[in-house]
Amino acid sequence: MAVQNKAKTARGENSRQRILESTWQLIGKSDSREVTLDQIADVCGISKSSILWHFGSKEALLLEVADNIFRDLEKLFIEQCPPDSSIGERFAFFLNNYEDMLNATPEAPRIFFSFLFNNQFREKINNKIREIYEWNRETFCEQFNLTENQAVILLGMLNGIVIQANVHPERIKIKEVFDELKSLVKKIL
Amino acid sequence: MAVQNKAKTARGENSRQRILESTWQLIGKSDSREVTLDQIADVCGISKSSILWHFGSKEALLLEVADNIFRDLEKLFIEQCPPDSSIGERFAFFLNNYEDMLNATPEAPRIFFSFLFNNQFREKINNKIREIYEWNRETFCEQFNLTENQAVILLGMLNGIVIQANVHPERIKIKEVFDELKSLVKKIL
Repeated sequence: MAVQNKAKTARGENSRQRILESTWQLIGKSDSREVTLDQIADVCGISKSSILWHFGSKEALLLEVADNIFRDLEKLFIEQCPPDSSIGERFAFFLNNYEDMLNATPEAPRIFFSFLFNNQFREKINNKIREIYEWNRETFCEQFNLTENQAVILLGMLNGIVIQANVHPERIKIKEVFDELKSLVKKIL
Repeated sequence: MAVQNKAKTARGENSRQRILESTWQLIGKSDSREVTLDQIADVCGISKSSILWHFGSKEALLLEVADNIFRDLEKLFIEQCPPDSSIGERFAFFLNNYEDMLNATPEAPRIFFSFLFNNQFREKINNKIREIYEWNRETFCEQFNLTENQAVILLGMLNGIVIQANVHPERIKIKEVFDELKSLVKKIL
């Protein structure tokens, strides 16, 4: 029985990953709001009802994809940032990775922000958003040696810059703002 | 004819103001998403069709209310901030007013952010959001002697702090974060 259960769990985890990857591929190609569960089911070859069994709703699945992208960013940072670098250098390293992520998957922050202040979503989605914010702040506290309130400011700053660049892409260039930010942060950290 | 037109315009402006004030009163009492045009019409004694004639949609009206609150904040700052104060002092003065506004009308930023990343709204709403961001940045440039990219960072920071406090009010206290921010900004400005 135990062996069977393990096999079942492994199969379940494998399906989960395939669903996440297919969704990621699809939202890379078009607006996340236009991606349907039917399209996702088509790409990963897993039925719609199984997808819903794994994630509960399309919204929860999209948010999970965004969460994964943010976690990859954290993993990349922890694995690749030179351990003897100063906090200013670490922050610049992080900003470069963050910028690459925004260029590669501009939909990730858009998905995340579209769930904020949107009353139609259930408690589960709101809890997930809180959870993403919490581990983001924790990572900032650890990696840049910040207090929680300082992490709120730094994370807020990144959020607010990405939002403005999304609202007015012809006007606000993430790269330029991040360069300015690196030099400002050097004065603080 | 000219006199008649002027009277008409004055009456129109008067109605506009009454609609804005009634909406402001109603959203002070409940969630802005629950306020209906019928309720607004009831409170100001102006028909729903007239309200729509003035503002186009409930969403545009709500955004106009938020815009007015932000503009009052700017006016208050320009009128009351001591002219001989340093930029750090000016920023602290602004943050105090901003905090008072958030306490008095917590719905203002919520309205604003709920329109961001929400595809269901028309071009007109998106243009208004861009416009609000633009004059906010211009004010920051003028009042705190910043470049546009610095204004993006500062405005983004305030946005991101308010967002996190809304997502997790039990955890993030605006007052504490703003106190931290004042001491950080002193090091930069």
